Amino acid sequence: MVLSALKNYPVNLSAIVTMADDGGSSGVLRDEYGVLPPGDIRRVLVALSRSDKVLRDLFGYRFKSGSLSGHSFGNIFLSTLEKTTGSFSMAVKKAHEVLDVRGAVIPVTLSKTRLFAELENGEIIKGETNINIPKHDPRLKIKKVSLMPPVKANPDAVKAIKEADFIIIGPGDLYTSIVPNLLVEGIPETIRKSKAKKAYIVNLMTKYGETNGFDAGDFIGVIERYLGKNVLNYFIINNKEPARELLEFYKKKDKSRFVEPVYQDQRYIFADLLAQGKFIRHDEKKVAQLLSGLL
Amino acid sequence: MVLSALKNYPVNLSAIVTMADDGGSSGVLRDEYGVLPPGDIRRVLVALSRSDKVLRDLFGYRFKSGSLSGHSFGNIFLSTLEKTTGSFSMAVKKAHEVLDVRGAVIPVTLSKTRLFAELENGEIIKGETNINIPKHDPRLKIKKVSLMPPVKANPDAVKAIKEADFIIIGPGDLYTSIVPNLLVEGIPETIRKSKAKKAYIVNLMTKYGETNGFDAGDFIGVIERYLGKNVLNYFIINNKEPARELLEFYKKKDKSRFVEPVYQDQRYIFADLLAQGKFIRHDEKKVAQLLSGLL
Repeated sequence: MVLSALKNYPVNLSAIVTMADDGGSSGVLRDEYGVLPPGDIRRVLVALSRSDKVLRDLFGYRFKSGSLSGHSFGNIFLSTLEKTTGSFSMAVKKAHEVLDVRGAVIPVTLSKTRLFAELENGEIIKGETNINIPKHDPRLKIKKVSLMPPVKANPDAVKAIKEADFIIIGPGDLYTSIVPNLLVEGIPETIRKSKAKKAYIVNLMTKYGETNGFDAGDFIGVIERYLGKNVLNYFIINNKEPARELLEFYKKKDKSRFVEPVYQDQRYIFADLLAQGKFIRHDEKKVAQLLSGLL
Repeated sequence: MVLSALKNYPVNLSAIVTMADDGGSSGVLRDEYGVLPPGDIRRVLVALSRSDKVLRDLFGYRFKSGSLSGHSFGNIFLSTLEKTTGSFSMAVKKAHEVLDVRGAVIPVTLSKTRLFAELENGEIIKGETNINIPKHDPRLKIKKVSLMPPVKANPDAVKAIKEADFIIIGPGDLYTSIVPNLLVEGIPETIRKSKAKKAYIVNLMTKYGETNGFDAGDFIGVIERYLGKNVLNYFIINNKEPARELLEFYKKKDKSRFVEPVYQDQRYIFADLLAQGKFIRHDEKKVAQLLSGLL
């Protein structure tokens, strides 16, 4: 969302992408072919692609039947390139060319790892997809997430963070998309040292099994736990509540609730960031305007 | 082979490719996804690609295990594009761009069809792969091949033949790669009307189950049966016999024998076209020199 929002602004975008995905097509490819999970990278590549709709549709296409069922074409593309070149990094670079990607899409690490979560009752959940779906009792809070084995940052990711003028974190699934980046050795250290402006965009809605009952302060608390206090300059929080019918729909469907914009300190930026429409989503234009105002 | 041979000559190449393939990865894709068979087109696209080795290797890569086992990446690419664009023609055009293809690779038809063969005992064999492998008694001669349903030529193929200065047919599997092009309504008619020079390059070796015991005259006889007599200007025939050990190896492995360069009329061009090495193959440079001399 942030990338699409900023795509047409005169900025150099580098997107650092988590590599802890192990569900669906990515999970099958990593298990069967020993490759790195391509799914999250593929989504970002397509979001930043300037090529025509034909190629963007191709990369996003998911087979619904037959021997390729469940696979997305873009995932197969990245995994096959990783096999033929022996390098995920090279595969991603080649995909930049083919998709004419604006900016740089950078895997946070080039090493294989798995995400683990410890619940408040001490239970350990293995795998991003099992935390994400979730297969555990979703009322239990997540106490801690970690990567096993521990992995080091992709040097390109460290370089991009060092050179950044503005570091934007989130929105996205807190424990399965955002925090996994901060578990990679070298990433939180580099963000802390950076003199760039740093913002965290809080999610609009809670996620059952991951962030039940969280308000804006809870989201920020988790980020600060992994990144450190007084690192971020801005917390960007939507304060426009979605329509009651929409909230009812999300509650019924996903047990997902509105993230209350609780006030805490002066770094908090409250704004109406809500998009019109049938889904509770950030409005790209509102977000882009707000972010460009902070630059 | 002809395309690779002529790739670096100052000529505009158009390759018209049979669409009767129904074995292996192409067969699975056409059965499971209702797409046109991509395999032969993919091989020609890669042969004419000017892109770097990374992309050419990618398109030629074949999965040996897992859920994608047996599929070639290039086939998946073409079939997915056909699904997303709804047009095989568009898929092939897009592949030209991605692979930076020199010249044009043109499917002979855009309609689905199957190749059938009638053997000398009256038995009917359905499917290119069953004729090719072969599953029938390989000592029986093929009496006739046909396409069911009958299909019309791709207008781009007709246009390319009309505009050609030189039409080169073969080498390749006689009944499963070459003749199927001549069964498509509009193709033999257009070749016959064309004022271009026309050459047929005879295979080096026979193929068990397809062309057992054929000499050069037999190959030419079959082509003339489907194309008409006195249409072709040149028959290009290798007259350099491969080494005895190589011939023994081919005989043992494939029951394949040297095609004897039998003399018939003055249109026959005999030349040493044999490549050095461990396989009995045409030498691309020798073929290119001979063809460019005829232009």
